[in-house]
Amino acid sequence: MKINLPETGQERIVIVGGGFAGLTLARKLAGTNYQVVLLDKNNYHQFQPLFYQVAMAGLEPSSIVFPLRKMFHKDKNVFLRVTEVLSVNAQEKFLETSLGRCNYDHLVIATGADSNFFGNKKLENLTIPMKSVSEALYLRNRILDDYEKALSETDYERRQGFIDIVIVGGGPTGVEVAGALAEMKQYILPKDYPELNVKEVDIHLIQGGPVLLQGMSDNASEKALKFLQQLGVKVKLNTRVTDYDGECVYMNDGSNIPSKKVIWAAGITGSLINGLPEDVIVRGKRVEVNEFCQVKGSDDIYAMGDIAFMTEKDYPKGHPQVAQVAMQMAKQLAKNFKLRAKNKAQKPFSYKDLGSMATIGRHRAVVDLPNYKFSGAFAWFVWLFVHLFQLLGTKNKFFVFVNWVWNYFTYDQSLRLIIKPRVPERKVEVESE
Amino acid sequence: MKINLPETGQERIVIVGGGFAGLTLARKLAGTNYQVVLLDKNNYHQFQPLFYQVAMAGLEPSSIVFPLRKMFHKDKNVFLRVTEVLSVNAQEKFLETSLGRCNYDHLVIATGADSNFFGNKKLENLTIPMKSVSEALYLRNRILDDYEKALSETDYERRQGFIDIVIVGGGPTGVEVAGALAEMKQYILPKDYPELNVKEVDIHLIQGGPVLLQGMSDNASEKALKFLQQLGVKVKLNTRVTDYDGECVYMNDGSNIPSKKVIWAAGITGSLINGLPEDVIVRGKRVEVNEFCQVKGSDDIYAMGDIAFMTEKDYPKGHPQVAQVAMQMAKQLAKNFKLRAKNKAQKPFSYKDLGSMATIGRHRAVVDLPNYKFSGAFAWFVWLFVHLFQLLGTKNKFFVFVNWVWNYFTYDQSLRLIIKPRVPERKVEVESE
Repeated sequence: MKINLPETGQERIVIVGGGFAGLTLARKLAGTNYQVVLLDKNNYHQFQPLFYQVAMAGLEPSSIVFPLRKMFHKDKNVFLRVTEVLSVNAQEKFLETSLGRCNYDHLVIATGADSNFFGNKKLENLTIPMKSVSEALYLRNRILDDYEKALSETDYERRQGFIDIVIVGGGPTGVEVAGALAEMKQYILPKDYPELNVKEVDIHLIQGGPVLLQGMSDNASEKALKFLQQLGVKVKLNTRVTDYDGECVYMNDGSNIPSKKVIWAAGITGSLINGLPEDVIVRGKRVEVNEFCQVKGSDDIYAMGDIAFMTEKDYPKGHPQVAQVAMQMAKQLAKNFKLRAKNKAQKPFSYKDLGSMATIGRHRAVVDLPNYKFSGAFAWFVWLFVHLFQLLGTKNKFFVFVNWVWNYFTYDQSLRLIIKPRVPERKVEVESE
Repeated sequence: MKINLPETGQERIVIVGGGFAGLTLARKLAGTNYQVVLLDKNNYHQFQPLFYQVAMAGLEPSSIVFPLRKMFHKDKNVFLRVTEVLSVNAQEKFLETSLGRCNYDHLVIATGADSNFFGNKKLENLTIPMKSVSEALYLRNRILDDYEKALSETDYERRQGFIDIVIVGGGPTGVEVAGALAEMKQYILPKDYPELNVKEVDIHLIQGGPVLLQGMSDNASEKALKFLQQLGVKVKLNTRVTDYDGECVYMNDGSNIPSKKVIWAAGITGSLINGLPEDVIVRGKRVEVNEFCQVKGSDDIYAMGDIAFMTEKDYPKGHPQVAQVAMQMAKQLAKNFKLRAKNKAQKPFSYKDLGSMATIGRHRAVVDLPNYKFSGAFAWFVWLFVHLFQLLGTKNKFFVFVNWVWNYFTYDQSLRLIIKPRVPERKVEVESE
């Protein structure tokens, strides 16, 4: 079976993945004389930096995702297909997808990265990752479900299992989730669950390395630790989680923490497509590319974003796997496709670091600019502003802004709803009649 | 096991169901000297009149549901438990729930009604009901999923199956869904799916009775039919659906319509609790009550709302199963509980019909007031205003209002996102690596 796409006679660029890299490239190629085919598992683009706010019931999923179709209403050369890519055949230049075979002239792999469980199936099956808005929503439901269960649990130890939370990984996601949970404990729990003793609620953050926010400045790392401790988060550095059985987290220092919820933010691994030659796959399951984003040994397959591994003078170990790199790569690749159409020489990619930031909680954030580092309330407002600005769509910006203002003044994330699209209970109930 | 609730020495009123009836009663009894225990399967109250807008991607679920816990922050005599009620033991005065046994002094059944499939298991398993926000969200995902599938289906007949929709039932839900789908076809589809031929999309509404909106005025019924036909909906009156196999809908006039999506809004049946005596259960699985909402033959079990069957002079066949009746019953029952606490005589319930209304689409609604009936654009604005006003919570009102204004001017329901809380794909993908 062949995927149903019009044959326009144009050269076809197939982009796999509608994240920061894939979406930016598709937008930049809209209106060109290429046929652009964008493939994604979902019909929306997700804004990963705000996943943790969805998980904490501060924002609705719809506020931080954007329908891909809406983006390309006016662009007749861009075709979207919601499908799963199964494998690539580089010799015959086609992809196998769940919708059938898809030929390409140029293939761009922008599949990003997923959680890395380091081969531990128990961790994979029992911890909760935060790499998609669906997972964030699942985490929200789990947290709320477990508080409800805690209300009915009279045994102290078992109740602790429902209300304590362990977060593994001290990068931006781990730090942001830990801070947000600490604020939830402080502002929401006493109001919503007066029957629970809020002092019993423990939030643990486990970091393998010696500092939080590795890759940011020493100042940022230290401030993040201080902020989290102020909020009552129990931070363990230099500690690795070795196992989890659904009830108890085990660490390499011999200690353990009973908890029914472990949030996994301890590392990522490339989301590879089957069929790529073994020798292009490097550490972290990334795909090695040259300075034009071309996959090693190929001139019609490209990779960019988190999945791509490119070295340059200042980055001999590759670029950080962040949105900025993805978007800059996509912009350069779009320029190169346009140059190519004019038979002009393509230009190599070079990453320009604009800085990085993380938020820990209300009035608590850290910002590293290339020449200036700061933290605290002003950093927090900068964080909010930058993220609001980066969100796609006026309506999303507006709704997120209103939600933030609302939450800021009411100290109340009001989306504490356990909503699941399907109701299996209904069927059971009907059948029992 | 016993449900974990403090023994306060107060008389305990247990309310089953947090719909219009149960929630109103709990709110009215907040601050009294009764211990009020509200049991619901969900941690939120759902605003049913706007389910269809969730299904049509016009509103987010969170805008039309309200967290029950938030409602009772300040009310120390109200206790909420998210649980499933399994059965009642009227002799020993307790409920069996999924959280354990729950004793009561007074039991109020406000479990409402669910879809009625008239005993047909195929209809029950294969059609899509609209009696909860979860089901509305499921319908939204199905509609969008199927449009995506239609894009890849080159066979005309099979493509029709994905894009045609059959709605069964010509009451308010059926009429509102049909109208909204027709508008989606007109305004959204051509922009989002330029590759589909919008003229191929058919929306069918099948109504068993001779008119739409039975129970409303002749004027309303006729206008609703006219409005739907203007929007291109194919309405069949006096026709009953006899069977559905997932591919094709069969009707009692011998005709059939191929469609992969059938929305079931053809009737409701009471959501009974096991253990009630057989002789109190009447037609439509409703529970017969006296004018004080007391279940026949009992003085400490009450029923109100859709599940209750009460006759009075103007309503010899019982009251209509609508939100107005539910809320008025709850208010009267609250008053009676308060009178009872003062050892005063209780007052019988009498329903005051304030009118009814339904919306078909932009500038198209019908309103029946007791002495005045009207339709069209003004009726539509009245419909919007009344429903906005009835929604719980300032934030919900605000967000719904902003969404409506946005959709009104842009002709664009922008929430066309297929988001599911869990990602089964992820597991599969990881395993295949």
